Amino acid sequence: MTKLADFQLEWTPKLNHQLEDDLTRASNDSDFSDMMKYAVLNGGKRLRPMLSLAVITCFGQKITPSLLKAATAVEWVHSYSLVHDDLPAMDNDLLRRGKPSVHAQFGEAEAILVGDALLTGAFHVLATANDSAVADEAISASELLTLSQILSVQSGGLGMVIGQVHDMYNHGQQSRVDERWLIDEVYTPKTGALLAFSALSGTRLAKSQDIGQTVQDRFDINSAMLTFGHDFGVAFQIQDDLDDFDQDDTENIMSLPHLIGIPAAIQKRDSYLSNARQMLADVSRHNPKFDRTLLDDFLNLIGDKV
Amino acid sequence: MTKLADFQLEWTPKLNHQLEDDLTRASNDSDFSDMMKYAVLNGGKRLRPMLSLAVITCFGQKITPSLLKAATAVEWVHSYSLVHDDLPAMDNDLLRRGKPSVHAQFGEAEAILVGDALLTGAFHVLATANDSAVADEAISASELLTLSQILSVQSGGLGMVIGQVHDMYNHGQQSRVDERWLIDEVYTPKTGALLAFSALSGTRLAKSQDIGQTVQDRFDINSAMLTFGHDFGVAFQIQDDLDDFDQDDTENIMSLPHLIGIPAAIQKRDSYLSNARQMLADVSRHNPKFDRTLLDDFLNLIGDKV
Repeated sequence: MTKLADFQLEWTPKLNHQLEDDLTRASNDSDFSDMMKYAVLNGGKRLRPMLSLAVITCFGQKITPSLLKAATAVEWVHSYSLVHDDLPAMDNDLLRRGKPSVHAQFGEAEAILVGDALLTGAFHVLATANDSAVADEAISASELLTLSQILSVQSGGLGMVIGQVHDMYNHGQQSRVDERWLIDEVYTPKTGALLAFSALSGTRLAKSQDIGQTVQDRFDINSAMLTFGHDFGVAFQIQDDLDDFDQDDTENIMSLPHLIGIPAAIQKRDSYLSNARQMLADVSRHNPKFDRTLLDDFLNLIGDKV
Repeated sequence: MTKLADFQLEWTPKLNHQLEDDLTRASNDSDFSDMMKYAVLNGGKRLRPMLSLAVITCFGQKITPSLLKAATAVEWVHSYSLVHDDLPAMDNDLLRRGKPSVHAQFGEAEAILVGDALLTGAFHVLATANDSAVADEAISASELLTLSQILSVQSGGLGMVIGQVHDMYNHGQQSRVDERWLIDEVYTPKTGALLAFSALSGTRLAKSQDIGQTVQDRFDINSAMLTFGHDFGVAFQIQDDLDDFDQDDTENIMSLPHLIGIPAAIQKRDSYLSNARQMLADVSRHNPKFDRTLLDDFLNLIGDKV
């Protein structure tokens, strides 16, 4: 059993409990908060908040209640994006993880509104992350505001949303697609951006003395962790496209493996994984106490699936 | 010419300029930021940010660049809500202010994503409100984080979104509709919540010494202004339904005038307006320097349209 598998066993229930608690309070209308819960608590792996928690742990810091709550914000964004992606006007998916998608279960208007409420809720979670914190464990307001800013960049018109916009051009139309465009304008914003947020927010949420000695060290480490998250995300997306190769073929979707061939896509994936490992080595060089085991296990998740 | 008309002449172009500036930077894909601009810069009255600016002015404070920017955040939320409301699965409106709605112009998937990016952008605007502030005019991070929290409450599953959910029940189904429910569960969250945010955020953004002498004064004034915004919003919504009476009749929508009759709806509207005026009187009692003229003009906007 990997260290990450142990870590997930411990933290998955705690993340789910935090999400459920906040989702219950996210609307006074229990029918509607039940729809929001249906969208979020559907057996996901919690990859994005888990990555934040793993990063905090790698820097040797304890996961406090406010850090746990702050880490869940990105899952609200990820969940809303799945609800909206499944809509008839988007991917038109009736199933999500083997169960009816939100619009299939509750209706299309409801799914649009559930997604809207989840996206709004992400920023509420960040703004109220200190609710159950004891005084000396509270995250500073300026740090939470900065995270709110970074999350809005990584998830909006400069991040995930524009990745979705560009991804639409891959459905049945091939004119704008080349390898560089696909990686920079689709994979990077669609999948890299949120995982980069997870890695960076975990780093920023660790106490500065745990991250690095000097301001320059901390700056370099933040940059390396942002790149680590991005590269992990792009490799993750390429793996996803390798797994979905036959299905994408049927649906005429021009994914990277279709564009450059399966062997070249595997090579590309591995070069992102290798660069992500290099980032961890850079962090270790700046901070000898940094324990990268959990993050290597994240990278190995992808190799395992091939 | 009312004082508000003068005020709007001065501040509408500045609000539009601020919105356009931030919208240009909201995506690296200019086709997409143009869609976002189409959704926002379509001749709206900027009622919600204008109310925030008016409140700041009533408390005698100068509108600085950071206050101007912070005031625009609510307009991003309002704009996204119009884009999503117009969608085929929601109100299915092909026109908005005499021009094709966003989905009619650009497509349904694009409209969903434009709305998502605008909602995300609202929180980015708040988090970056200080970008062009000189040092002593910066809004504190903790105030901006609090505004982000209040905005998420007023616009999400506890506010505007749940108002939209309940509003759907008024389209062709009358089983759940009674007067109290319509006002508390539809008008209050759907229209009252954002205008309450506008009034409260304007109050909070004014310097505390401009608002009231003591902590208790300021607390009472914040509460009164929240209620003022809410009551103005409910009156505004009743007026809107009076204006749309014939159209709602055709579409089988159970609005307040249909439920209790036009004279009773007018009486209800006027009682909310009267309560809003009482709130302004309460604020004046706590703070003799408070100049309510602009806010009375806001309330008179509604009477004028009858």
